[in-house]
Amino acid sequence: MTVWMEDLTSKEFQDIVVRDPLFILPIGATEAHGVHLPLSTDTLQPEALAEELGERMGALIAPTINYGVHNTTRTMPGTVDISFDTLRALTRDVLDSLVRNGARRILVIIGHASGTHMTAIGLACTEVARRERVRIVCLSDWDFGDEFAEAEGIDRHDGHGGIMETARILAIRPELVKDHRPSGEYVELGHSIPLDASRRFPQGIVGEPSKATAQIGRRMNSFLADRLEEIIRRDLGG
Amino acid sequence: MTVWMEDLTSKEFQDIVVRDPLFILPIGATEAHGVHLPLSTDTLQPEALAEELGERMGALIAPTINYGVHNTTRTMPGTVDISFDTLRALTRDVLDSLVRNGARRILVIIGHASGTHMTAIGLACTEVARRERVRIVCLSDWDFGDEFAEAEGIDRHDGHGGIMETARILAIRPELVKDHRPSGEYVELGHSIPLDASRRFPQGIVGEPSKATAQIGRRMNSFLADRLEEIIRRDLGG
Amino acid sequence: MTVWMEDLTSKEFQDIVVRDPLFILPIGATEAHGVHLPLSTDTLQPEALAEELGERMGALIAPTINYGVHNTTRTMPGTVDISFDTLRALTRDVLDSLVRNGARRILVIIGHASGTHMTAIGLACTEVARRERVRIVCLSDWDFGDEFAEAEGIDRHDGHGGIMETARILAIRPELVKDHRPSGEYVELGHSIPLDASRRFPQGIVGEPSKATAQIGRRMNSFLADRLEEIIRRDLGG
Amino acid sequence: MTVWMEDLTSKEFQDIVVRDPLFILPIGATEAHGVHLPLSTDTLQPEALAEELGERMGALIAPTINYGVHNTTRTMPGTVDISFDTLRALTRDVLDSLVRNGARRILVIIGHASGTHMTAIGLACTEVARRERVRIVCLSDWDFGDEFAEAEGIDRHDGHGGIMETARILAIRPELVKDHRPSGEYVELGHSIPLDASRRFPQGIVGEPSKATAQIGRRMNSFLADRLEEIIRRDLGG
Amino acid sequence: MTVWMEDLTSKEFQDIVVRDPLFILPIGATEAHGVHLPLSTDTLQPEALAEELGERMGALIAPTINYGVHNTTRTMPGTVDISFDTLRALTRDVLDSLVRNGARRILVIIGHASGTHMTAIGLACTEVARRERVRIVCLSDWDFGDEFAEAEGIDRHDGHGGIMETARILAIRPELVKDHRPSGEYVELGHSIPLDASRRFPQGIVGEPSKATAQIGRRMNSFLADRLEEIIRRDLGG
Amino acid sequence: MTVWMEDLTSKEFQDIVVRDPLFILPIGATEAHGVHLPLSTDTLQPEALAEELGERMGALIAPTINYGVHNTTRTMPGTVDISFDTLRALTRDVLDSLVRNGARRILVIIGHASGTHMTAIGLACTEVARRERVRIVCLSDWDFGDEFAEAEGIDRHDGHGGIMETARILAIRPELVKDHRPSGEYVELGHSIPLDASRRFPQGIVGEPSKATAQIGRRMNSFLADRLEEIIRRDLGG
Repeated sequence: MTVWMEDLTSKEFQDIVVRDPLFILPIGATEAHGVHLPLSTDTLQPEALAEELGERMGALIAPTINYGVHNTTRTMPGTVDISFDTLRALTRDVLDSLVRNGARRILVIIGHASGTHMTAIGLACTEVARRERVRIVCLSDWDFGDEFAEAEGIDRHDGHGGIMETARILAIRPELVKDHRPSGEYVELGHSIPLDASRRFPQGIVGEPSKATAQIGRRMNSFLADRLEEIIRRDLGG
Repeated sequence: MTVWMEDLTSKEFQDIVVRDPLFILPIGATEAHGVHLPLSTDTLQPEALAEELGERMGALIAPTINYGVHNTTRTMPGTVDISFDTLRALTRDVLDSLVRNGARRILVIIGHASGTHMTAIGLACTEVARRERVRIVCLSDWDFGDEFAEAEGIDRHDGHGGIMETARILAIRPELVKDHRPSGEYVELGHSIPLDASRRFPQGIVGEPSKATAQIGRRMNSFLADRLEEIIRRDLGG
Repeated sequence: MTVWMEDLTSKEFQDIVVRDPLFILPIGATEAHGVHLPLSTDTLQPEALAEELGERMGALIAPTINYGVHNTTRTMPGTVDISFDTLRALTRDVLDSLVRNGARRILVIIGHASGTHMTAIGLACTEVARRERVRIVCLSDWDFGDEFAEAEGIDRHDGHGGIMETARILAIRPELVKDHRPSGEYVELGHSIPLDASRRFPQGIVGEPSKATAQIGRRMNSFLADRLEEIIRRDLGG
Repeated sequence: MTVWMEDLTSKEFQDIVVRDPLFILPIGATEAHGVHLPLSTDTLQPEALAEELGERMGALIAPTINYGVHNTTRTMPGTVDISFDTLRALTRDVLDSLVRNGARRILVIIGHASGTHMTAIGLACTEVARRERVRIVCLSDWDFGDEFAEAEGIDRHDGHGGIMETARILAIRPELVKDHRPSGEYVELGHSIPLDASRRFPQGIVGEPSKATAQIGRRMNSFLADRLEEIIRRDLGG
Repeated sequence: MTVWMEDLTSKEFQDIVVRDPLFILPIGATEAHGVHLPLSTDTLQPEALAEELGERMGALIAPTINYGVHNTTRTMPGTVDISFDTLRALTRDVLDSLVRNGARRILVIIGHASGTHMTAIGLACTEVARRERVRIVCLSDWDFGDEFAEAEGIDRHDGHGGIMETARILAIRPELVKDHRPSGEYVELGHSIPLDASRRFPQGIVGEPSKATAQIGRRMNSFLADRLEEIIRRDLGG
Repeated sequence: MTVWMEDLTSKEFQDIVVRDPLFILPIGATEAHGVHLPLSTDTLQPEALAEELGERMGALIAPTINYGVHNTTRTMPGTVDISFDTLRALTRDVLDSLVRNGARRILVIIGHASGTHMTAIGLACTEVARRERVRIVCLSDWDFGDEFAEAEGIDRHDGHGGIMETARILAIRPELVKDHRPSGEYVELGHSIPLDASRRFPQGIVGEPSKATAQIGRRMNSFLADRLEEIIRRDLGG
């Protein structure tokens, strides 16, 4: 059963914790995702995965972290960007607090799969896992995106705000997805560090979101949940 | 109209920002509130106020900060505690990001009215307001709690998880409030800094929550919205 | 007997410390206090209280911290302002050093009763008290100001540089108080964070200092010492 | 005329500042100085020099910093030790505040002449002098100690708590100096960083303080004031 | 012509800088690389590349950074590990210093291709490139390793201390490579953060170094230089 | 025998470490040294001393730190300057890593003998020595420069880039020393902190480098090695 920690009383929480549950910490973002997807796109996906995993295996879902580190979309309207150090400290403090509360098995699911963002979170996870000697698995729900794309014959360049992201949000919160979904292209800016990285996404997204369907989204969500379930059973024991 | 920023596309957000809207940043907490109230109690209250203010005056609500600094309840099951420095950095980064997005009038509503917690947020607000020369009002929705209590004849010692908090959650999310609501007492520990501050709340709360009703909660929410509306009109222009 | 630590030799200090004395750390400030009071006003008051308490109960007074965090008076001539982080680190280091020297019972008296200033000191006190498991009481000598004002019939808006502060300095160091003592008013700037907070005190002070007398000051100093003595006896043992 | 900033009202301070006065910031310490000298030994000396310079040339003396960084005496009873970073931050903040108040010519006199302590202060002085483009002279009153010792035929190994320090305190605050003044020797511990540096001063001091007289102290204080006066006239203009 | 900055006089350096040369900053590591490769393996490779690029295009090579952030090999004998924050600060300071010296076109070549290590360097490069508005290309010389492996038919699991690394050191400093070169295997530890990551490399390396030859190494070095030369001509102008 | 750690395999390193060898960490700099000496002057000297000591006594030389903190030469072409905090953190991290690798006896040799630079290193050495309870000797190879100068009748004002430094580089790397070696003078700037400290060395150096010979350099290198050997034998045991 999925349980959102925030909905519990202190007593209910304690009654669950003594049974050594799986904790899930979703880490989302508030980020521009083109003209058709909501700013919460990267939050909705890991939250939905967390819910699905809870349904399947039982889990206690900690309050989502809503902010991340952004580079390419940083200057686009609606992106809320926090610094690398702040995200690292925040993740570390929340994990430390969960551990103090009794968490021993924690899955951190990251919705925004950028390298810098994930390193900030990874440093925090590694610090807490080693210092407190608890088991933490830290994954982006996009770690298995390529595998799904290949299986479905989706263009391998499909990316930010493209078919897969759009399909997943269509499956999760269809009312937040607009019908007008123009395509976007990734522009290679070369290896020199760009002063304005947003030129990489002139249309704000990468891929052909008009091809997305809720059905594809449901298949993908299910596919990712399968992968994560497998990993949890193998690496986070019970 | 209330608009949650996270539900908007980048384009929709931009269309609103150019009209210089009121931004509201709710700052909640994840904190033990006795055997009858959910851990999200301090998050639900400022979010509900933000919604109400949005209905009345129009506002863009930024993604809620869900974590805070806790002292008395820090060791109670379910409290998620982050450090003073992390909360300060997080609030500063989020505010800076909103300002970079065009925010010029910001209301920060704080659900957890503890002095240390509020100072962390206050330092961040002051830094951003002065550096960026924008208008920020930073208030706890409890700044007017005493006034309401007096008007309603509620015991002036009513506090954490007591009549007023319970009543407000009964008005906002009744399904999260338990029927069994034992009273709790504040225990004066003296002026020496306690090694374990939780001894101040032996029952985890302070007050008589069994006296709470949804009606009182609705009156209080409305009363607070009146006060804040007044302040916004006077101090955050438009 | 009052003993200023700085006047002792290392040997004399050690001879006292082995008897587990009460330590007092006065924290003052260097701050503009209108045209009639010296910049050391907030230093003289806790030092005088420390002396009085020493006379009554015996105490070892550590070297005063002379600098604080200021907001409203920050831009007024003569205010020496240090940052929140510096004040916190300084207080923590001094307390840690006293504890390393054998202090187990410490009273921190704060002369400048501003919230941010007191939070910086409070964080340091809490950190040291818990980490080192020593007893620390941290109070502003203004925590009992309202009680005294009421008892004496002093206007409840009397504040910075007003009757009470002036009276106390008249009792402590009369030669530093000027005869010309114009009144000042607090100007409510609303809830928006002011770019220049000094507009709150257009005359630099709040109250009617011309009504102050040394007699009132002596009564107030005595009143505060009574309160603190009580607290020390109850909460700092012996 | 010597003016202690702390004794002035805001108005008096402002009236002096507009005439571009010399500011002096004394930096003392609270440190064990054997069985015959007070813990304030390193504070009394720069304060006395500041007073003397004020008498000679006019100066505004800022509130003394009473704490420093200690190595050899750190574990001796009565030494109050703050960290390198805290001392640097404190000195920088105080200097920044003086500059914001209008100081353009600042003499920093350091009573405790240890290398690490002086580097912390020196870094702060250099940062503020360059960033704010003000003139700062930062000296230990011991920079001319060897010169005086040679002129007086005092043993060149005379050091911490020895003839010269004792003589100066005899001249400044004779009532704080004990009559029993055993000699002490510096013990060379080799070049390996000692785990306990206090073994360098087994008697807590270095030198023969019994040879000290108030007369020597007065000559030395006068000699140092001469040197500093010369430097101020040449390097801090007017 | 290759010029190592450290061999130049200040004057010679200045004469080159005015012609706006390409700067190269090699970032190596001191890290265990099995029983057959030296601890400097990750330093020798970017230095050799820098030399080769200098020969081809002219370049000024800054002093190599010899330390990095290590995870898997951290506990193996000979690995010198510095923290993420230290590496970031060091890279930033060195780059800032080069820019202050006139550098406008900088190639940073990283020998140790671990994600965390590269993020620390990447954050520093991005900060300096944007703040100072200079062109910086930051690459690992392993960014093209897969491409080379495929072209040469080398096993795609070849990794740390395997065929390619061994071959390159055989080409660069053959005398430092031992003849006995046992194979090693990567052990998948699952997704849970390992308390001891070194279990991933039970033999300390990954691959079959016995298959390495100096000829392969020369081909690879040349192949990488081709790729980098292309990138420099395109993205770092001249 | 001298062994450079970077040339060893992990296995070879481990075989040496178990015998509790002397570790030497050379700390150099990249700094302008007039028109005749290379930027690596302060690196070459401690490295040569480390080599010589290794030949005499056996030692494991850790990878050199190439960057330092500079004041007077900071703005001269070719000086690479890092901040005080970065140098302190870097030295601490490298020492901690050596200790984790088994180092128990460490000599840190500093080529650039400026006070601030040496304090940064000294703070790191002291922290690690005390926390890890290992023996560390931290010396500048210039600590015995005056003694040598006196013995050789070299002008006592000989300094940066003068006879002694030039002679040593002539002995170590003659091909890097130019024949044209104009003299330079130290200009006393007074005690006020200079906005541009490079005015102290108008010719970039201090002394008469034309008088330097390789023979003097060899004598000096040998003299310094004698002093250090003595210290190591006495203070770093074996």
